[in-house]
Amino acid sequence: MSKESSVAASQETFAIRGDIVWSRHASNLQWAKDGYLVVVDGVCKGVFQELPAEYEGIDVRDRTGRLVIPGMTDIHVHAPQYAFRGLGMDLELLEWLNTHTFPEEKKYADLSYADRAYSIFADDMLHSPTTRAVVFGTLHVEPTELLMDKLEATGLKTFVGKVNMDRNSPDYLCEKDAQASLADTVRWLDEVESKGYVNTKPILTPRFTPTCTDELMEGLGRLKQERGLPLQSHLSENLSEIDWVHGLAPWSSCYGQTYEHAGQMDGEGHVVMAHCNYSTDEEIAIMKKHGVFVATCPQSNMQLSSGIAPIRRYLVEGMNVGLGTDVAGGASLSMFRAVADLVGCSKLRWRLVDQNLKPLSTAEAFYVATVGGGSFFGKVGSFEEGYEADILVLDDSQIRTTLECDPSERVERYMYLAEEGGRMVEKYVAGRLVVRDDRLVGSKAPAAVLTSAAANTTVSSAKSA
Amino acid sequence: MSKESSVAASQETFAIRGDIVWSRHASNLQWAKDGYLVVVDGVCKGVFQELPAEYEGIDVRDRTGRLVIPGMTDIHVHAPQYAFRGLGMDLELLEWLNTHTFPEEKKYADLSYADRAYSIFADDMLHSPTTRAVVFGTLHVEPTELLMDKLEATGLKTFVGKVNMDRNSPDYLCEKDAQASLADTVRWLDEVESKGYVNTKPILTPRFTPTCTDELMEGLGRLKQERGLPLQSHLSENLSEIDWVHGLAPWSSCYGQTYEHAGQMDGEGHVVMAHCNYSTDEEIAIMKKHGVFVATCPQSNMQLSSGIAPIRRYLVEGMNVGLGTDVAGGASLSMFRAVADLVGCSKLRWRLVDQNLKPLSTAEAFYVATVGGGSFFGKVGSFEEGYEADILVLDDSQIRTTLECDPSERVERYMYLAEEGGRMVEKYVAGRLVVRDDRLVGSKAPAAVLTSAAANTTVSSAKSA
Repeated sequence: MSKESSVAASQETFAIRGDIVWSRHASNLQWAKDGYLVVVDGVCKGVFQELPAEYEGIDVRDRTGRLVIPGMTDIHVHAPQYAFRGLGMDLELLEWLNTHTFPEEKKYADLSYADRAYSIFADDMLHSPTTRAVVFGTLHVEPTELLMDKLEATGLKTFVGKVNMDRNSPDYLCEKDAQASLADTVRWLDEVESKGYVNTKPILTPRFTPTCTDELMEGLGRLKQERGLPLQSHLSENLSEIDWVHGLAPWSSCYGQTYEHAGQMDGEGHVVMAHCNYSTDEEIAIMKKHGVFVATCPQSNMQLSSGIAPIRRYLVEGMNVGLGTDVAGGASLSMFRAVADLVGCSKLRWRLVDQNLKPLSTAEAFYVATVGGGSFFGKVGSFEEGYEADILVLDDSQIRTTLECDPSERVERYMYLAEEGGRMVEKYVAGRLVVRDDRLVGSKAPAAVLTSAAANTTVSSAKSA
Repeated sequence: MSKESSVAASQETFAIRGDIVWSRHASNLQWAKDGYLVVVDGVCKGVFQELPAEYEGIDVRDRTGRLVIPGMTDIHVHAPQYAFRGLGMDLELLEWLNTHTFPEEKKYADLSYADRAYSIFADDMLHSPTTRAVVFGTLHVEPTELLMDKLEATGLKTFVGKVNMDRNSPDYLCEKDAQASLADTVRWLDEVESKGYVNTKPILTPRFTPTCTDELMEGLGRLKQERGLPLQSHLSENLSEIDWVHGLAPWSSCYGQTYEHAGQMDGEGHVVMAHCNYSTDEEIAIMKKHGVFVATCPQSNMQLSSGIAPIRRYLVEGMNVGLGTDVAGGASLSMFRAVADLVGCSKLRWRLVDQNLKPLSTAEAFYVATVGGGSFFGKVGSFEEGYEADILVLDDSQIRTTLECDPSERVERYMYLAEEGGRMVEKYVAGRLVVRDDRLVGSKAPAAVLTSAAANTTVSSAKSA
């Protein structure tokens, strides 16, 4: 016992009291009204209706009446596209890349432009529902490091990728050749390692097969395996894109095989493939074999006229599925809106494409947005014991209704109506406070809670241990 | 000249200076940076780059840097469903009506419940982008009058309907018979007339063919023609609903004919039919013949798994098309979000259903939301000369970007991102201020502009005339 007490004394222990809602399984939401979420050293100990005796005397942050839910993982988002989100929504993927995306990404060669643009992106993401994200940068090394510096400072946990592209790209946004691209990538990885980030990790990022030579693809595959790195790319988003890949790699049974063949699905690090709207049986088998995460991005798939991914199938097959905003294919940075869009798009797919695949419920989409994508980071996205404590404290009092709703119903409403009166009170990442709205904590705030996003926030549990 | 001066002296004349954006045609947005929108007695005189000499000395409200756009018409919304928006999003139309909608609408028999619920609805609508709306109440007379009282007080211009339903409805929400339903309707119309509303008008509202006996349908058709009233209902929203109507009216060539046959498309008042997702050639011909307005409600059609309306076809055929939120089939009351959803759904329809119908552009969806639905009220929804001055002044400074956007691009972004930083500065209905955020007008506010939403707001132009 004395040994345990001593360990506890070095840990940060607190509880949040409120109306707590989370996913245990995909099928429904768990909730505890006026419950306690106990966090020790950044990790959830569980949700309790009464505070267990062993935690008596710990710092209890009274958020009575507020919703307390897990943070969301935006598993696919392009930081350098943030500036033009909501613009140029009149093209399909390949034309859209050439017309809007590449000319904008070129600007990030200029560090002062990157500084201005990434400052906005990082600050807006900090204040969004996202606690973790898997992020594309550009092909530029220093600007991508600048993006990582800025994200590191937010306290959000992210994987960030310097993009690789050495063919089929405009001259102004194309690496010289595979060797130059790989050399830049190694330099970037080494520089990032020396920075000693706590929150921010590198992820290999071949843009997509059409813009990467075979030599580059294979080089990245080797790098992935040698260094045990994760990897992100795009897969079967759009029909013209798929045709193009078939032309570029006529030997392949499917688009997904071009990544597998290059060794990019081997090794330790997780792999995430964005979209998978048209994955064939072969492609699904490859993804299952390697435990690939599908990053589904419903708003982007709608606004780029791409189609709708068969997410029900992927869930039934037991695959890893996370949810992404895909800014700027999707305009909105709100993962709440992404949850609503995922439900809505699954319904349209059921109605218009395939009545064998039942639409997703709001609870299922919530699971995908929290546990689904969170799993890319480990045990993240739930309040079950052992999960890292990513927490959103939300005020839904301004989303008015005459109905008495239980906490899970309030969360359902929040997903659809967050932007019509929802307010974030606090955001924690792995137990650490990163955002707090003082007006909404008010007199209920324990004095010891700090307001600075940069500071450590939990109160020492020495006294209570 | 002296006569004209004297008329001007009795009118309220002002100009708003800002970045003005509006539709002249459906295809693109007009704009004037740092322009002047001149309003005389509630009607637009046009947008000018320089203030014309004849308006020298009038009250110029300096909103430099703000966006100034026409108000939006929500052409299909159910006030008594507002309380449960965002909940129970797991059923199709007919099940959803029985499970969620009818039990909620029943509560409005209780005036005190109606008072609480409609207070929230009216206040939220006042602060939404909507300046005009076509609204369903319930079958209850006094509660519908209460709704009208509350909407009248907002200053918004609305048509509001007491619902008719005398069959295929639960006992607790079904009128005794056609005669009772018609008698209640006449009593309601007479009482409304005696109230002398300025902003609020009655509209006949058979819920939909399945819940109205032939006798009731025909009685409402006669009433429409006798009194020159407008009429609203639902049409071809959902496949099971359409099958049901075919069973109930096997003589009909299409669902739409059931309304036409009852005389409900004749007479002076406009007719609006919500959804029209599956209208046949026959049904389209009927709608065109009678100038029926299609109320398209993309979020509802997605969330109730109904399908997607062929809006491109309706526009090409020169039909009247407006945009609705269809709360609570749609969760959101935001017409901005409805614009984005209309674009997105038209893209999915193009991708998944029919590549002959090109998706809508954001400019076209904006046109439908402003001029399209506004036309139900007359010359409403544009800033061209002669249009009633429904105006939104918007602050987009918090939707941050590094890009220099022209005003039309800023409006495009606003449609997608309103809820991520957009703020309403002022809202005018037919020249009358109904909402103003003092914090956002700040020191630039002319002293004479009133802050009370209830007061008349424009400054007498006597001096300048």
